[in-house]
Amino acid sequence: MQKHTQNLGNNPWRVTESSFRPEHYSLNATLFALGNGYIGLRGTFEEGLEGAADQHGCYLNGVYFSEPITYGESAYGYAKNNQRIASTALPHQLSIKLNGELMDMKRGKVLGHHRELQLDNGLLSRDLRWQTEGGQTLKIESRRLVSLTDRHLIVTEYRVTPENFSGRLEISSYLDATPAQAEASDDPRVGSGINPDDLKPLECQADEHGLLVSQRLRSSGFTLVSAATDRFHGKQPLSTQPERLGSYSAAHHHQLDAKAGETITLTKYALCYSWLHENEEVSTQKIQSHLLASCQKGFGHYAQQQRQAMDRFWQDSDIEIEGDPELQQGLRFNLFHLFQSLGRTPGTNIAAKGLTGHGYDGHYFWDSEIYIFPFFLYTQPELARNLIQFRYSLLDAARDRARELAISKGALFPWRTIGGEECSAYYPAGTAQFHINADVAYSIKQYHLATGDNQLILDVGAEVVWETARLWLQIGHYNPHRDNRFCINEVTGPDEYTALVNNNYFTNAMAQAHLRYASELYHWLQCDHPGRFEELVQNLNLSEAEVNEWREAAERMFLPYDDESGIHLQDDSFLDKPRWDFANTPKDKYPLLLHYHPLTIYRHQVCKQADTVLALFLLSENFSLEEKRRDYDFYEPITTHDSTLSACMHSILANELGYADKARHYFSQVARMDLDNHHNNTQHGVHTACMGGTWLCMVQGFAGMRIHKGQLHFAPTRPEGITHYRFKVRIQGRQLSVSVAPNGTRYQLLSGPPLTLISGDQELRLEQPNTDYTATTLREDNAS
Amino acid sequence: MQKHTQNLGNNPWRVTESSFRPEHYSLNATLFALGNGYIGLRGTFEEGLEGAADQHGCYLNGVYFSEPITYGESAYGYAKNNQRIASTALPHQLSIKLNGELMDMKRGKVLGHHRELQLDNGLLSRDLRWQTEGGQTLKIESRRLVSLTDRHLIVTEYRVTPENFSGRLEISSYLDATPAQAEASDDPRVGSGINPDDLKPLECQADEHGLLVSQRLRSSGFTLVSAATDRFHGKQPLSTQPERLGSYSAAHHHQLDAKAGETITLTKYALCYSWLHENEEVSTQKIQSHLLASCQKGFGHYAQQQRQAMDRFWQDSDIEIEGDPELQQGLRFNLFHLFQSLGRTPGTNIAAKGLTGHGYDGHYFWDSEIYIFPFFLYTQPELARNLIQFRYSLLDAARDRARELAISKGALFPWRTIGGEECSAYYPAGTAQFHINADVAYSIKQYHLATGDNQLILDVGAEVVWETARLWLQIGHYNPHRDNRFCINEVTGPDEYTALVNNNYFTNAMAQAHLRYASELYHWLQCDHPGRFEELVQNLNLSEAEVNEWREAAERMFLPYDDESGIHLQDDSFLDKPRWDFANTPKDKYPLLLHYHPLTIYRHQVCKQADTVLALFLLSENFSLEEKRRDYDFYEPITTHDSTLSACMHSILANELGYADKARHYFSQVARMDLDNHHNNTQHGVHTACMGGTWLCMVQGFAGMRIHKGQLHFAPTRPEGITHYRFKVRIQGRQLSVSVAPNGTRYQLLSGPPLTLISGDQELRLEQPNTDYTATTLREDNAS
Repeated sequence: MQKHTQNLGNNPWRVTESSFRPEHYSLNATLFALGNGYIGLRGTFEEGLEGAADQHGCYLNGVYFSEPITYGESAYGYAKNNQRIASTALPHQLSIKLNGELMDMKRGKVLGHHRELQLDNGLLSRDLRWQTEGGQTLKIESRRLVSLTDRHLIVTEYRVTPENFSGRLEISSYLDATPAQAEASDDPRVGSGINPDDLKPLECQADEHGLLVSQRLRSSGFTLVSAATDRFHGKQPLSTQPERLGSYSAAHHHQLDAKAGETITLTKYALCYSWLHENEEVSTQKIQSHLLASCQKGFGHYAQQQRQAMDRFWQDSDIEIEGDPELQQGLRFNLFHLFQSLGRTPGTNIAAKGLTGHGYDGHYFWDSEIYIFPFFLYTQPELARNLIQFRYSLLDAARDRARELAISKGALFPWRTIGGEECSAYYPAGTAQFHINADVAYSIKQYHLATGDNQLILDVGAEVVWETARLWLQIGHYNPHRDNRFCINEVTGPDEYTALVNNNYFTNAMAQAHLRYASELYHWLQCDHPGRFEELVQNLNLSEAEVNEWREAAERMFLPYDDESGIHLQDDSFLDKPRWDFANTPKDKYPLLLHYHPLTIYRHQVCKQADTVLALFLLSENFSLEEKRRDYDFYEPITTHDSTLSACMHSILANELGYADKARHYFSQVARMDLDNHHNNTQHGVHTACMGGTWLCMVQGFAGMRIHKGQLHFAPTRPEGITHYRFKVRIQGRQLSVSVAPNGTRYQLLSGPPLTLISGDQELRLEQPNTDYTATTLREDNAS
Repeated sequence: MQKHTQNLGNNPWRVTESSFRPEHYSLNATLFALGNGYIGLRGTFEEGLEGAADQHGCYLNGVYFSEPITYGESAYGYAKNNQRIASTALPHQLSIKLNGELMDMKRGKVLGHHRELQLDNGLLSRDLRWQTEGGQTLKIESRRLVSLTDRHLIVTEYRVTPENFSGRLEISSYLDATPAQAEASDDPRVGSGINPDDLKPLECQADEHGLLVSQRLRSSGFTLVSAATDRFHGKQPLSTQPERLGSYSAAHHHQLDAKAGETITLTKYALCYSWLHENEEVSTQKIQSHLLASCQKGFGHYAQQQRQAMDRFWQDSDIEIEGDPELQQGLRFNLFHLFQSLGRTPGTNIAAKGLTGHGYDGHYFWDSEIYIFPFFLYTQPELARNLIQFRYSLLDAARDRARELAISKGALFPWRTIGGEECSAYYPAGTAQFHINADVAYSIKQYHLATGDNQLILDVGAEVVWETARLWLQIGHYNPHRDNRFCINEVTGPDEYTALVNNNYFTNAMAQAHLRYASELYHWLQCDHPGRFEELVQNLNLSEAEVNEWREAAERMFLPYDDESGIHLQDDSFLDKPRWDFANTPKDKYPLLLHYHPLTIYRHQVCKQADTVLALFLLSENFSLEEKRRDYDFYEPITTHDSTLSACMHSILANELGYADKARHYFSQVARMDLDNHHNNTQHGVHTACMGGTWLCMVQGFAGMRIHKGQLHFAPTRPEGITHYRFKVRIQGRQLSVSVAPNGTRYQLLSGPPLTLISGDQELRLEQPNTDYTATTLREDNAS
């Protein structure tokens, strides 16, 4: 697919599409998606677009099909089934017919078209003027919201004004769950197709009260129910004809006597429900009552609630920057989509593409823990809790998976999944990424440090950390050929341009941290919470001897390092490979994965994304600045950033090293990754990890926030062209405002007890709430 | 599937099944298969067996379906299509009906059953007595041959005698090409299923002259035509009714007035034809004339021709052993199947399962060159030529494949294929086995050494060796971290329990030999055949500079070696892995590949098959005996022999090292691998590589035949329990007979000019033909 650039304006609260370009339709269906953590509705037109039916999507978080994975050559222990995020009946579909001509933006004449994703209001608005072949002109204004206060609800307000004619107009309102065929692709990042045989139609009703369509996903057992009804405000239809269109689709056909200049206002209320178990079932009657109650409240009510919910969000989570409205727009857009995509209910997480497209089949990855979790942790820790609960809910499946891999105790989290089953069909860049266990434990430790919430650790955290820690002693060993250091062979690190290596630095270092934390938790529980301790160690059959083995393995962990160059080596054999011939690789051969066989890529020194560099950030305390500089200087030039997970880490490290130009350059990529479609695949969904990386770049990159040995640090710098920036963080029961300006950084304690922090080399004691404490030094970096 | 052992007799010329056991049906369908290098007919009953229709198979060498390979996650450069050997209409199918009761060995009562695979006659015979539910007894005798002198022809003589009744009998004769469904399996060694949609029916005729069925394979374009007709000898049928049964099947129904004690003799003649291109097309008329001519010659004629063809084969190729009839039986059985499986026509080779089953989808592997080629080379070099021609015919496809892998010049042979396209759906144990290029070059060099046939080298050999040699400079590099030695990373060696490693010893050593031979050939052609030289180097754009690069890379080839232990290392990191826990692996967990995830296996020191040990044999001259001993002693205990390619190499090396017990033990496995179904999967086809290994064990193992620096050597030993053994070899225009006895070894020059050979430490000059020259020393080995 060719890359198109478009002008999305520079309104810091709005993303605007100011003309209709069919070639942007699929990309903008992603960008203009709305969601509430449960439902994600792609930003397709109410009436669709000719030839682009496959762009529709209304995803339900945590709800999936299951389909057997087909292997040309199978082997023992391979992932058996793929779980693919389910799309339910479209809740916003409407069509207009006049004189038998169906309105479609590809026919007739588009006289004007304007869409706005309203980041402040949580709405998508659309205003257009369209002319039929016969010259009749319509004005259409729609406002759409996926309710942040009622997770089942989608409301669409649709206003139609005949400009230059009067006569008969038909508006049809659909509830259509007919499965669309996904495109076939060799690109592993694109999701797989739908098997219509998996859908079992249950109910399909159309009557004067409304529409209702329900199906069962045979393979996974989920039931999906959607209901919808319309209300006209002011002018009423002459008649309304309900129609059942096969097993998956129903409609209301409204006949209207349109008058030139007179606006017809229709509001469509739709509900999506889903459940897996009988005891979660919701009766049709209850759904219909819910629908009726929603109609009675009206669009204005929900729009106001939506605004309030967004206000609350921005109040805690916004990052304001001055001096670069496009960056500001990108930054807000990214945080907005994170908020829209995050699962709030048990058993849901945040998918790599959020709820905006079917890319990666809607799977959850380690992206959640390492790239996205910190944003929620430091702004809305109550939402971060759900991610930890999510992993806990998967623990039994992870235990089963470990057994399949001959790991006799403990748990191994799946590399990609929705419901807990490993779905990676290419194990060298899937199951072999054992580091996921350490990533999950890392996020639990961060949660513990940042919130001081012992209860969650006692309830679920310790069990997850311990069970996942058990992996390492079973796949690693003390290697007599490496001075009896603890080595972990045959793994893949974060960088997927190298696979199945021995002693991946990132994996070993994260495993070391994991084992240490597991051991610390053991002793903390033993001392401070002996009751829970006894209960847990008995349930898990965990002995002090085993914990001693953990500590021993951590102490003797092999961390590959080249004495000569002073570089931490990505793996044992990284230096044995020749450097990729970047000079003779044309631009159109990137991303490499789409143009070279894995064997060609794996044979070379070339990184898809930060790997050792990521360790420099996550385990920042383990490295001196000089070590970081040597590693960064070595790895950065051989990294293609073919993964959207890469640029943010490079921006953060560049910041730390004083490479201001690079920090700014990578941040620009990150902040507008999807808006500018840098990776040319945003049509399949946004890149939520990169969006999380945006926050990391600002708060942990430019502002340099770290917790070192329990002490909060900042080391603020300002990216070129940005005069001021401000954000808030929550930490250990406090909320703190940070405002960086040319003359220094102002800190305010917005709530909670007094706090000491270090800003650059100054120590500040924040005693009084809502009082400015200013650190005058601002690090001045040289361009690299 | 549970393993069953059965008694197959110990007749050294016959494999006998002396009772009917349904649980052996699928296994024996493989063992009793007949073939002629073009057609392979599984040893199923003429009337089939209830519930076992999928056991039928009539394979055509080199003829295949093509089907897209489905990947859960695809990537650039993956093999796109699988080629699967085609099964054509069954040429031997007959049924008997009496009083409406269809004869089936699973119904009624089997009063006796005896089958013999006649290795001397090239026939399968079957004698049985069967009783209906009503007590009517039939005697049936069939003789079947797949003609070695007319490659399209299959003849079945079928004699039926009612023993205790007279009355109406119906014998139906079928020609049935209806596609059978193959079993689904997670075992990668089992072939994949058939897609009936790929078959396009062309003709299906049944008339008084005979039956004719033809189809096109849509995906690959092959046309398959089968024709059949019956002749009664003596008693004639009352009537014969032709019937067309759908698009793929036709029949003749013969009504007979049977008389107790009177034998009905029916001979069924069937022809199989196939072609890919229009210009190879054979007209229906010509096929029908061919069929008529065959009928006129009669079964006796073909049986006699068959016997003569087998006589010629055994005359040159037999290995006689005295003292162990079961080993003798196994040995002859193996050589017989090799002879039956080897393609004689352009574009055909010998499949891993021969023409006896659909295992591995009928693919050709490196097995041909390394395990099977020597047998033909030293007994019937004219058949070995075809294997080299086969690779030459694939050269253009191999060039295309190299480009897909970013190898800008030269060729890369597919790991598994029929028609030339890479069919490996798991590249870590497929495409990554780059050593196939060196294996092909190795076989060409062996051919050149053994035959002195310069012409084939000039015509095709040099081009193949050079084009394949080009690979190494493109995937290898001079590694500054290894003293600037030439290293080859990210490959898989023969041992598939380790994958994607750096500097696999076998690969590097074979590449070294390949590059040296390529360079030698260059200078030989330059000096001795300047005309052909000029033509070739121009066509291939090959310069002296490039050849110098080859020699340089060979000289500086990195060959991993551990100074401390004196072991050649299977790869760079082999010593870094912990040893597999053999002590705690129950027997039923073998083969490991069916019980452990590849990650579990790859992480450990464990070999599926000979890898470095194979190099010790193929590149024997490169190693001292002490080096071989150290390597063997290290690798043998960690080798599971889960591949049937392993035991023969261990027998040969054990022989060389004087480990007589081990040599004998492994040889016993090898010689009766399929007869005793040691790997419990012979039902999917015989193991042709292991069969070739049988010959290697005897001639290059026990008799110790080598050509070192152009000099022929023997070092005979006798396996325990074998008093004498005798075989013949052809070498550089001579035929030599070798006879090993307790008191020494007798050599006879059967044809060709005088020859000097070294037997043990004695030099013998064979001047006179047909005269005994005796070496009195026989190596006496100690048991290991």
